[in-house]
Amino acid sequence: MMNQNDQKRIRSLDQKKYRDKYRQFQIEGVRLVESAVLAQTKIVKLYWTESVENQYPDFVTTVINNGIGITRVTDKEIQSISYTKSPSGVVGICEIPDSSDLDVTSNTHWIYLDRISDPGNLGTILRTAAWFDIRHIALSAGCVDPYNPKTVRSGMGAHFDLNIHPNVQIELFKKAGYTLIGADISGDDVAISNVQKPWVLILGGEANGIQQDTLSQCDTILSIPKLGTGDSLNVASASAILLYELSKL
Amino acid sequence: MMNQNDQKRIRSLDQKKYRDKYRQFQIEGVRLVESAVLAQTKIVKLYWTESVENQYPDFVTTVINNGIGITRVTDKEIQSISYTKSPSGVVGICEIPDSSDLDVTSNTHWIYLDRISDPGNLGTILRTAAWFDIRHIALSAGCVDPYNPKTVRSGMGAHFDLNIHPNVQIELFKKAGYTLIGADISGDDVAISNVQKPWVLILGGEANGIQQDTLSQCDTILSIPKLGTGDSLNVASASAILLYELSKL
Repeated sequence: MMNQNDQKRIRSLDQKKYRDKYRQFQIEGVRLVESAVLAQTKIVKLYWTESVENQYPDFVTTVINNGIGITRVTDKEIQSISYTKSPSGVVGICEIPDSSDLDVTSNTHWIYLDRISDPGNLGTILRTAAWFDIRHIALSAGCVDPYNPKTVRSGMGAHFDLNIHPNVQIELFKKAGYTLIGADISGDDVAISNVQKPWVLILGGEANGIQQDTLSQCDTILSIPKLGTGDSLNVASASAILLYELSKL
Repeated sequence: MMNQNDQKRIRSLDQKKYRDKYRQFQIEGVRLVESAVLAQTKIVKLYWTESVENQYPDFVTTVINNGIGITRVTDKEIQSISYTKSPSGVVGICEIPDSSDLDVTSNTHWIYLDRISDPGNLGTILRTAAWFDIRHIALSAGCVDPYNPKTVRSGMGAHFDLNIHPNVQIELFKKAGYTLIGADISGDDVAISNVQKPWVLILGGEANGIQQDTLSQCDTILSIPKLGTGDSLNVASASAILLYELSKL
């Protein structure tokens, strides 16, 4: 049984102001919750329905072996705390990790996202970053919240493997001696790039790309050759190609 | 002024059954409509508000120079035929091109999409295909409709530059002597691939990838090396990397 206050609180976490207030976000589905458990993410609460216990015994074992407390709820209760049209029967509440300790002095690569506004794109970029083992993500002011439910969903578990830092200024990387790589249609062919390490790859928002004063600070500007037509590539698609190519260096 | 029947009909085009019935789809926004005009797409009707005439004089000139009839409507009327929360003031109705004439004998590359279910992913793949100059797209039965409003939106005009064929069986390419390239996590590194031309790149749905009987017909299976973590890449991100790499051959 869930109490009404918990229901209300979980529902409120679809809004940024309440995620900021409680420092928590909601996750749904067996796959996402399992990723969180395996990554040792702090799960504050976990709810599931009886059908999940019958359908996913291995998942249940994983959860229990990791010592996570479970509240069994009814279908109606899970619906009330789900953000999707067809709830999967599992909802977890995670702590938003503390990101105030931002250390850019280590010799590791970063991605810097400049005002990405589409939550799905942000999640897809995070998923791609995890795939290519880029573990550190900095977001400019004005980026969509990384704990937006759509971002979490399209991240497919990447959130639990990454360090995500909001409200970062690009100057920080400049001062720390990073090579600033901007992705822009005006740049050089990414395939022939020769980039000094460590680098930070900067990707700009859907509408206008990288802001002018950030772009002007870049050491290198890279571009993906256009063989056909279109004004640009989707930012998540562009980041996939760039990370693929940069990870070869 | 719009008549009520037109309003009702345009609103109905957000459903596949009415798009199939009328063989029409709706497009919105200055950029998308301009792409359609420049690509000589058959625009059946075009509606805009007075503010568009004041704000986008170049666009207005392009439309008029291409001899497209315009109906000026009120803000309220445009709202009634818009599918977005903040209507841009321009809505067009286009003919769905006839795709019954499917010729795979020419020496050109294809993309084959096997049960892609997310409309945004499909649109993003089309956008990427146009960028890399792959002009011919075949969709399996069970794929999301390419004229779904979300697909059209995320396609960003690619629809007008591509030939899109729904309900195609993969056997057609096999018989025509194409090299069938499957994208699957079990495959070989795409960077070291050596593929006979012409090829058809096969991408599978978000949940389960390429269907087993399609995968078993592939001549080559390619994969994007995983350096970090995650079960898979987003299918649109994977297609971006694969098309980028294949376009180098």
